[in-house]
Amino acid sequence: MYIVPEREIGALMTRASAFDAVEKVFAAMASGEAYNFPVIREAIGHEEALYGFKGGFDRAGLSLGLKAGGYWPNNLQKHGEINHQSTVFLFDPDTGKVAAMVGGNLLTALRTAAASSVSIAHLARKDAKVMGMVGAGHQATFQLRAALEQRSFEKVIGWNYHPEMLPNIEKVANEAGLPFEAVPLDGMREADVIVSITSAFAPSLMAAHVSPGTHLACMGTDTKGKQEVDAALLAAATVFTDEIAQSVSIGEAQHAIAQNLMTEADIHQIGAVINGTHPGRKSADEITLFDGTGVGLQDLAVAAAVVDLAIEKGIAIKVDV
Amino acid sequence: MYIVPEREIGALMTRASAFDAVEKVFAAMASGEAYNFPVIREAIGHEEALYGFKGGFDRAGLSLGLKAGGYWPNNLQKHGEINHQSTVFLFDPDTGKVAAMVGGNLLTALRTAAASSVSIAHLARKDAKVMGMVGAGHQATFQLRAALEQRSFEKVIGWNYHPEMLPNIEKVANEAGLPFEAVPLDGMREADVIVSITSAFAPSLMAAHVSPGTHLACMGTDTKGKQEVDAALLAAATVFTDEIAQSVSIGEAQHAIAQNLMTEADIHQIGAVINGTHPGRKSADEITLFDGTGVGLQDLAVAAAVVDLAIEKGIAIKVDV
Repeated sequence: MYIVPEREIGALMTRASAFDAVEKVFAAMASGEAYNFPVIREAIGHEEALYGFKGGFDRAGLSLGLKAGGYWPNNLQKHGEINHQSTVFLFDPDTGKVAAMVGGNLLTALRTAAASSVSIAHLARKDAKVMGMVGAGHQATFQLRAALEQRSFEKVIGWNYHPEMLPNIEKVANEAGLPFEAVPLDGMREADVIVSITSAFAPSLMAAHVSPGTHLACMGTDTKGKQEVDAALLAAATVFTDEIAQSVSIGEAQHAIAQNLMTEADIHQIGAVINGTHPGRKSADEITLFDGTGVGLQDLAVAAAVVDLAIEKGIAIKVDV
Repeated sequence: MYIVPEREIGALMTRASAFDAVEKVFAAMASGEAYNFPVIREAIGHEEALYGFKGGFDRAGLSLGLKAGGYWPNNLQKHGEINHQSTVFLFDPDTGKVAAMVGGNLLTALRTAAASSVSIAHLARKDAKVMGMVGAGHQATFQLRAALEQRSFEKVIGWNYHPEMLPNIEKVANEAGLPFEAVPLDGMREADVIVSITSAFAPSLMAAHVSPGTHLACMGTDTKGKQEVDAALLAAATVFTDEIAQSVSIGEAQHAIAQNLMTEADIHQIGAVINGTHPGRKSADEITLFDGTGVGLQDLAVAAAVVDLAIEKGIAIKVDV
């Protein structure tokens, strides 16, 4: 088997490779070649930790395995380690033997950024100029960096509940040679593409804050109760997601469905757009919304890509098990 | 982190160590200090494989993690590898970081043998003399070897659907210095302890084949539909199990409950006997029955023990992740 330690991922994995891996596996999910297993998520009653497993199998890419780990809220303070900790384990689908172990922390950030980036590539207007960010934490920098590669943006605008964090994303915009402007929420009407990446439990971005023709990627809601955007926005938009079962239960769509503003049948797999079986955006003034919930298959896909890169560069640690 | 490859387990792990680990974790399960997560088990649609995860957390032993793997029915024929393949991953419960990876194939055999062995230690009559085996496959040799250490047995008797396999267990009996006798099923009336370890979907051992005072460990039924013994036997016995939720759904008790011969309230945790909160056997003519279904915590417990042994002996492979 091969081991790719967390410390090697940064130099190995590219946004382009993460984009390709995530786009392919979303396509495989929509064509029925790849599926996610039920998610295990447990409050273990120790260190206030949430721990669990996200597994799946991709018959097209032949990726089998799981991401294991979770959220240890006291890590940074007690151990100087980041609070989200995960590891990806890949298995040989022909024999059931363990094939690789890969640090999953940076990969999780990259695959989450790749997901909104894939949605922008397939759903945003080609002439999008203004990129809007709702959220400015650590993960927001990953989302923005990947988003900016998908269209010829001319400006980034951003809002955050804690405005003192906006320099995080201003820095990313400037690195891409783009001006940055802090805006109030109604300033988001200027945006052609909006990525929301917060951990809010109440909506901040309302329907009135979004102009016709916008593509919106809601990336923060992955738990029952979380909510980033007005449920009316989902009713007004054409809604896409990574995994419909998660969108309706733990994603942004949970609220619009609970309020009878839409049904599960109104939600489309982003993979169907990639595969060409759904037309995607149909007009310049349509609002498209991607409800990104995060699936184990994304983790397996980027981990499999990184293992290939690590073997190619002679960095993978080979252990005879 | 530490890696203990499959090839090292045989020389490292002892039956005594497996017994201790399994006894402790059964006790922790009964006292509420340890619990198993929901089991993931998927027919992945490739190589006819069943793949999944059995996880858990033991607050007493501080074991957190999972066994991942499954059943690849074509392995032996296609790859010269055994069909059951599994790997155990342990995590640091204080930080969520991966702590160890351990080959799980032999450990699974040893922890399954340890479970019936623990049940014999706590439930069989002290004066048990005749050990009965129903089943004579590869796993039966592990069960018998561990069972024989629990009482001063004087004879082993055995029955198997394919009698030509009986020499497997005769060899184990003889190695322990005991005579072996092949018997028809009604010959099992002579046994003081019976271990059943088959993969049958219909009962072979009937109530009439079992004498008063016998301790019976049913170790083969771990799936909906499987059945080794007459449901009437469970109704006649005091029933113990590793995990009640599994006993009623995928264990031997599923059938007695479906036939209204008993209820979930009639099933006791073996850990309660270990902890002294259940008296266990109350008379010399009581039939006790252990419904061993197999839980992830057993795997974590023996894996944690083997990691300690491997570190102590300098055999564990240390990898800086």
